[in-house]
Amino acid sequence: MTVKVGVIGTGMIGQDHIRRLTEVLTGSSVVAVSDINKEQVEKIATAIGARTYTDGVALINDSEVDAVVVTSWGPTHEEYVLAAIAAGKPVFCEKPLATTQEACLRIIDAEVKHGKRLVQVGFMRRFDTAYRQMKDVVESGTIGAPLIFKSVHRNPSVPPSYTSDMAIVDTAVHDIDTARWLLDEEVKAVSVIAARKNNRGGTLRDPIIVLMEMESGAIVDIEVSVNIDYAYDIGGEISGETGVVTLAERNRITVKSGGEYRGKVTADWKERFVEAFDVEFKEWLDAAAKGTATGPSAWDGYAAAVVTDAGVEAAGTGNRIKVEMRDRPALYA
Amino acid sequence: MTVKVGVIGTGMIGQDHIRRLTEVLTGSSVVAVSDINKEQVEKIATAIGARTYTDGVALINDSEVDAVVVTSWGPTHEEYVLAAIAAGKPVFCEKPLATTQEACLRIIDAEVKHGKRLVQVGFMRRFDTAYRQMKDVVESGTIGAPLIFKSVHRNPSVPPSYTSDMAIVDTAVHDIDTARWLLDEEVKAVSVIAARKNNRGGTLRDPIIVLMEMESGAIVDIEVSVNIDYAYDIGGEISGETGVVTLAERNRITVKSGGEYRGKVTADWKERFVEAFDVEFKEWLDAAAKGTATGPSAWDGYAAAVVTDAGVEAAGTGNRIKVEMRDRPALYA
Amino acid sequence: MTVKVGVIGTGMIGQDHIRRLTEVLTGSSVVAVSDINKEQVEKIATAIGARTYTDGVALINDSEVDAVVVTSWGPTHEEYVLAAIAAGKPVFCEKPLATTQEACLRIIDAEVKHGKRLVQVGFMRRFDTAYRQMKDVVESGTIGAPLIFKSVHRNPSVPPSYTSDMAIVDTAVHDIDTARWLLDEEVKAVSVIAARKNNRGGTLRDPIIVLMEMESGAIVDIEVSVNIDYAYDIGGEISGETGVVTLAERNRITVKSGGEYRGKVTADWKERFVEAFDVEFKEWLDAAAKGTATGPSAWDGYAAAVVTDAGVEAAGTGNRIKVEMRDRPALYA
Amino acid sequence: MTVKVGVIGTGMIGQDHIRRLTEVLTGSSVVAVSDINKEQVEKIATAIGARTYTDGVALINDSEVDAVVVTSWGPTHEEYVLAAIAAGKPVFCEKPLATTQEACLRIIDAEVKHGKRLVQVGFMRRFDTAYRQMKDVVESGTIGAPLIFKSVHRNPSVPPSYTSDMAIVDTAVHDIDTARWLLDEEVKAVSVIAARKNNRGGTLRDPIIVLMEMESGAIVDIEVSVNIDYAYDIGGEISGETGVVTLAERNRITVKSGGEYRGKVTADWKERFVEAFDVEFKEWLDAAAKGTATGPSAWDGYAAAVVTDAGVEAAGTGNRIKVEMRDRPALYA
Repeated sequence: MTVKVGVIGTGMIGQDHIRRLTEVLTGSSVVAVSDINKEQVEKIATAIGARTYTDGVALINDSEVDAVVVTSWGPTHEEYVLAAIAAGKPVFCEKPLATTQEACLRIIDAEVKHGKRLVQVGFMRRFDTAYRQMKDVVESGTIGAPLIFKSVHRNPSVPPSYTSDMAIVDTAVHDIDTARWLLDEEVKAVSVIAARKNNRGGTLRDPIIVLMEMESGAIVDIEVSVNIDYAYDIGGEISGETGVVTLAERNRITVKSGGEYRGKVTADWKERFVEAFDVEFKEWLDAAAKGTATGPSAWDGYAAAVVTDAGVEAAGTGNRIKVEMRDRPALYA
Repeated sequence: MTVKVGVIGTGMIGQDHIRRLTEVLTGSSVVAVSDINKEQVEKIATAIGARTYTDGVALINDSEVDAVVVTSWGPTHEEYVLAAIAAGKPVFCEKPLATTQEACLRIIDAEVKHGKRLVQVGFMRRFDTAYRQMKDVVESGTIGAPLIFKSVHRNPSVPPSYTSDMAIVDTAVHDIDTARWLLDEEVKAVSVIAARKNNRGGTLRDPIIVLMEMESGAIVDIEVSVNIDYAYDIGGEISGETGVVTLAERNRITVKSGGEYRGKVTADWKERFVEAFDVEFKEWLDAAAKGTATGPSAWDGYAAAVVTDAGVEAAGTGNRIKVEMRDRPALYA
Repeated sequence: MTVKVGVIGTGMIGQDHIRRLTEVLTGSSVVAVSDINKEQVEKIATAIGARTYTDGVALINDSEVDAVVVTSWGPTHEEYVLAAIAAGKPVFCEKPLATTQEACLRIIDAEVKHGKRLVQVGFMRRFDTAYRQMKDVVESGTIGAPLIFKSVHRNPSVPPSYTSDMAIVDTAVHDIDTARWLLDEEVKAVSVIAARKNNRGGTLRDPIIVLMEMESGAIVDIEVSVNIDYAYDIGGEISGETGVVTLAERNRITVKSGGEYRGKVTADWKERFVEAFDVEFKEWLDAAAKGTATGPSAWDGYAAAVVTDAGVEAAGTGNRIKVEMRDRPALYA
Repeated sequence: MTVKVGVIGTGMIGQDHIRRLTEVLTGSSVVAVSDINKEQVEKIATAIGARTYTDGVALINDSEVDAVVVTSWGPTHEEYVLAAIAAGKPVFCEKPLATTQEACLRIIDAEVKHGKRLVQVGFMRRFDTAYRQMKDVVESGTIGAPLIFKSVHRNPSVPPSYTSDMAIVDTAVHDIDTARWLLDEEVKAVSVIAARKNNRGGTLRDPIIVLMEMESGAIVDIEVSVNIDYAYDIGGEISGETGVVTLAERNRITVKSGGEYRGKVTADWKERFVEAFDVEFKEWLDAAAKGTATGPSAWDGYAAAVVTDAGVEAAGTGNRIKVEMRDRPALYA
């Protein structure tokens, strides 16, 4: 079955997902595209023979559209996701699910009322082979119970518009979701520690360490460094009771010359996670073809909002902030 | 543009390519399938809505078929490839291109007469990211002129039907093609040395070292070991005048427990080269959509035949066998 | 010149240093040994032709003794180190320099009054090749200013007598000294976070993360895990403004079998640091031959006491504890 | 017991061994030094308080000398080793044991007549930790019977005086001895293949591949590359019936900057084998203290001569040369 997809938002990530759905993956066709920029959406939609919209809700309600991808500006996500749920259509929503905890809860309420999962949030690391192998090792018991998870999130540079809070809300949010998923438990409290400032980042608070206490007592220790120049480098290590599992280097070849051996580190997030994005969309399409969703849920989107809010408060006050979440509906058990 | 593909042969590799064309890659549809086993071809074709043939030539001449994939038994390849050339249709032919040098030359003659490349041979390593990076390093000059290429080709085990000559014709043939491509030159002579026999392989001559002298004087040193149990392990290293480039380990995570750190080695050729197969077919489809072919050519198929013939003779006689090839037509320059 | 050494204390480490001085290194002879256990000291001293003492101060004042090694019980260190300073003799003192900050300051005062360094404290990591290369990289500017240092200190197991505070005072003390030395600055504040408890350690607070803020704002993040079973594993990574330096794995060979490649991790601290101990004593002897000391000083011993005291308080209270140190005398500039 | 050593030859390696015996290792004193260069020997001997000789045989017969180190010019080795045997003194002889097979046999005859091993030849790789671990793995059965041993011997550059035959006699000789020791068997035949010439080496035949067939049928495949610029890089891998053991990289730290991670390769043989030399001499002294020798024997020196002679002939003629050795005396069983 071919899933007829409508895409809302034609920024960089929207265009990349359109490419993925039309040129990389089988099983779908992009039949409608929406953007508030009429000229841009027409250019993009024409190239792939899709209908154009400037109103995302109208796209969602297009009877030809089976499933929706939301990649528009964050503040618009709630409206579109709620509209998709109202229409009973599977919706893939890039992070954030919504920009406030309350909005996330409204989505959860709507989805719970609908009675079946429709929402998938764009935490692509859960589809990455390396992280999946890491989770398999944890679940196999090879390293005993997981006690500490260290995550490293390094960007070569960020644009001038990047703010200190974005290091938590936009960057560490991936490590936060990964931690919840790998350890299979919720966050109890968050602290943020600013390290010596990287002068390459101007006034930016960078790098930082985000520390999270999990329900089991396990500690998550996230280094976020967004101007480290050398590469886009993602690290992860879980120390358990009897062993350790670590993400490996990713270079395909090693070169020896001039007294050294050398391997490449990934240059950017697209290079690092291109396969994960493909798998993410493949699994989303498989679920959408069955009228449902898989992977990171609205609950995970809500948890991310709660924890990053706590993180921003922790960074601002210097305090350890407790994380308070509502009870988890059975739909997300 | 969607390329309408006809697939000849529905063995393991044929079925895998049908899966690749229908479930993994965009840009094609499999409209016809042929196999001498009528029952099997009907089962497979029905599942994907394709027409069925028991005669490969008839499939080739089906006017709905834009391009052909040949994965049938080796001795049938010549007929099908020639028929595809006669029909002016791009054809992807799994190795061998044909089972004799003479047959390969007939294909070359036909393609040269046609005046444009139509034939692509299934040497998938040329599409592997690691090998492509290796080639880039050689061409960049970082290691100087390449002087020695060591290739390691290890299989965990082979079936009882596997013969000693197959280690050259079916297994080392990949390393032979890789060497010609990486070093960008032809083979001048071949020797084969049998090592101490691996008792896991019964009477099989295993492992062996295939030594090739290239036109430039560079030496290619191929270890073929087909019963080594531990994994499917492909190694490669080029020593140049000033440096070395080596294929890296491929594990995604490292586990530490019980006094050791450990990483996985690939289990079989499908795991090792799955991405290369996908890229190979993607690039074939892109070329086929333009009515031509890319990557390994009929010339490469011919060269493989000549060199493996020499290898079999070298193994049988214990002598160094010179490789004599006809002049390379301009089409393959 | 041969340095005539007197050794105080004949426990495991004392015996190991006697072996090192008599069997491994040239340039010294052990002429006197002291221990409160008369029987034991006589057995050990006889084997190497040394005089025996049960009173360490008497050994120090033996006119044949050029330089002193103190490996006795921690509470005795102050007396012996002060006596060595009074006698004007170079003294190597295993950690701790003394068991209280006040005692350390008395030693500093005495050494400053003497006017020349005589005291070297046993922080052997400063003599380890890997750490020295790490420090060279930091000083070279290759990674820019160091911003975060992550240290990992993992023991396979500890004896029942090991207490939670010892994880800071006896174990993390090495990472603390290493951090001060690598970053070349003092500690401003310490926090300690207990992770999910490793049940292999009974009631022990294990593992923990010791967080230190340095004068520059750099953060030191130490994982101490003392019952992790798999190996004695020491890790370290410094993130700078433009790059990262990391301790490498130490295995000498890799074995592939059963689907995996494997390398060994060091089994215990003796295996990991045997070469560092040898270098440490070689450099001590070289300095002692000139009537002075090198490497970790009484000031470093004092700093270790202050920071570990803060660490114990931080662990007990859950608070961030500021580190207050007296001004550094010019002798230790 | 202190072994009183006499050293014959004060070239670079002789001076290094004197340093090793006087400054690094305990258990010996250098009491006599000989060199035909009177001025040089006096300078060196005076510095360490040793007697001087210009006649190596006179040094050997000095009643104060317990054991002898021969590091003089190769053609003099036979005379000195025979004199040491005649005097019943343990003798460490740098490679070659002697410059002809016949001379080696005269030494063997003399030592057999003496009835106890006195001669140790300077193949230091047998004392290297990595190679010893490799041998342990082979003997453990983890990889099954060893079938192929690949050795890589790369030098950054050689002086103008270096000849093509020296690549076999002086360089590959270490790999040849290592192969005999690791596989625990003799060489049956040798071939030498010249690869594409490295233009950095002028007219030198470089690199080459030395192929050896062992008694068991195992193949040894040695790459010798003496002008490869990037480093002194020693590689080794044994493929067995069920697995593989490989020498690991030796870098102590990894640096990430500028898109890459990097580790150092050893710069020269002194850096690579400094520890092996120390262990070699420590074990020699231990044996010498008991009036005998250990490790590589006169038999190993003879085997090296026979095999390198065959290698030189193989390189000169292009033929496979059979290796003929006399029966191994029981002394070397």
